Amino acid sequence: MQNVDELKKLVGEEAANLVKDGMKVGLGSGSTVYWMVKRLGERVQDGLNITAIPTSNTTAKWAVEFGVPLTDFSKVQQLDIAIDGADEVDKNLQLIKGGGGALLREKVVAAAAKEFIVIVDESKLVSHLGAFPLAVEVTPFGWEITSVSIADLGGTPTLRHKDGEVFVTDNGNYILDCSFNQILDPEALQKDLKMLVGVVETGLFVGMADKVIVGKADGVSSITK
Amino acid sequence: MQNVDELKKLVGEEAANLVKDGMKVGLGSGSTVYWMVKRLGERVQDGLNITAIPTSNTTAKWAVEFGVPLTDFSKVQQLDIAIDGADEVDKNLQLIKGGGGALLREKVVAAAAKEFIVIVDESKLVSHLGAFPLAVEVTPFGWEITSVSIADLGGTPTLRHKDGEVFVTDNGNYILDCSFNQILDPEALQKDLKMLVGVVETGLFVGMADKVIVGKADGVSSITK
Repeated sequence: MQNVDELKKLVGEEAANLVKDGMKVGLGSGSTVYWMVKRLGERVQDGLNITAIPTSNTTAKWAVEFGVPLTDFSKVQQLDIAIDGADEVDKNLQLIKGGGGALLREKVVAAAAKEFIVIVDESKLVSHLGAFPLAVEVTPFGWEITSVSIADLGGTPTLRHKDGEVFVTDNGNYILDCSFNQILDPEALQKDLKMLVGVVETGLFVGMADKVIVGKADGVSSITK
Repeated sequence: MQNVDELKKLVGEEAANLVKDGMKVGLGSGSTVYWMVKRLGERVQDGLNITAIPTSNTTAKWAVEFGVPLTDFSKVQQLDIAIDGADEVDKNLQLIKGGGGALLREKVVAAAAKEFIVIVDESKLVSHLGAFPLAVEVTPFGWEITSVSIADLGGTPTLRHKDGEVFVTDNGNYILDCSFNQILDPEALQKDLKMLVGVVETGLFVGMADKVIVGKADGVSSITK
């Protein structure tokens, strides 16, 4: 029986092996992605020729450490593949992401990729999204009003703090962690939230994932659209 | 015959006279709002008791200069009235705003107000929106991709610069000025743009204005919903 960390390593490495020579690669964020970037670095040492765009400063640091060459959107307008973790995955490949606070850049990168691969351990599979609080990235100016508007949609928003301070994203915004209990219609909720004045982006990834690679105690399986 | 500056002063002062004792007031941005804030300051000196939330640092400075007491959204969750200018106004009271770059805060304030009053000189009235480029506020990360997505919707985006540098909004974002020529369905375009990953807000104000006060050579008139 493997523990969660071993499962993360397993799926991270499996996903790294999907990357082909010459590809432009989007690198997600989080502990599962760590193993993916590490394995990619080994493959680069072995001669794999790729460039990558990271979704957080932490991931960029890992890429530099493991020797994965980085680029940015001023040079590359489309990615061949993006690989990222998730906080929850339902059976329709809808995701909740944003526990780590990098949801906006993660979504920009996923949207720019021809193929978006999600890597999780089996604890992330759910029948309905929503047990994990949904991160909503909001403009600091008037966040109090935006919070009321989200509550009107049925959520219970809490302003994210870190080390006793209000948490600020890489983009200078705040995060409202919103309990919705069960999200029965992720697509409708994404629309309702994103249309609110003050909402920059949400952690709902609807219709974006092409494939989910799942690390289970008895091995790796995958779910495809 | 009055020139444009005189018309701006006329409607600005007219709007200031709509504010009643005890009101919480949203203060827009721009040259017409300047006269409104100045007149409000005079009324405060005469005993009018109000508090106001400004939509830009410039407006905040004017409020301090003219003695209009300021507050913020940590203390006030709803405004009684918001008064702001516009770059274009059509016959259905749909607006284009954002020439000055304060569109996001202006929209947050307008959305938080029970009544939203727009003040313009007659040169801003148009049969269809769109001759004035539509400002779209976007996240700096991946703005190049967002720009391509906006072009796919029929716009021609140009990254806004100021004094030779990329223009950065009060919220740390970029502005893409997007030529659409004629915007035939402002509501649909607002939805399509706002739903894009990377778009924070647009300068289309759809269904928000309750009343437009227009300064004309032969006096002031108003258009109501």
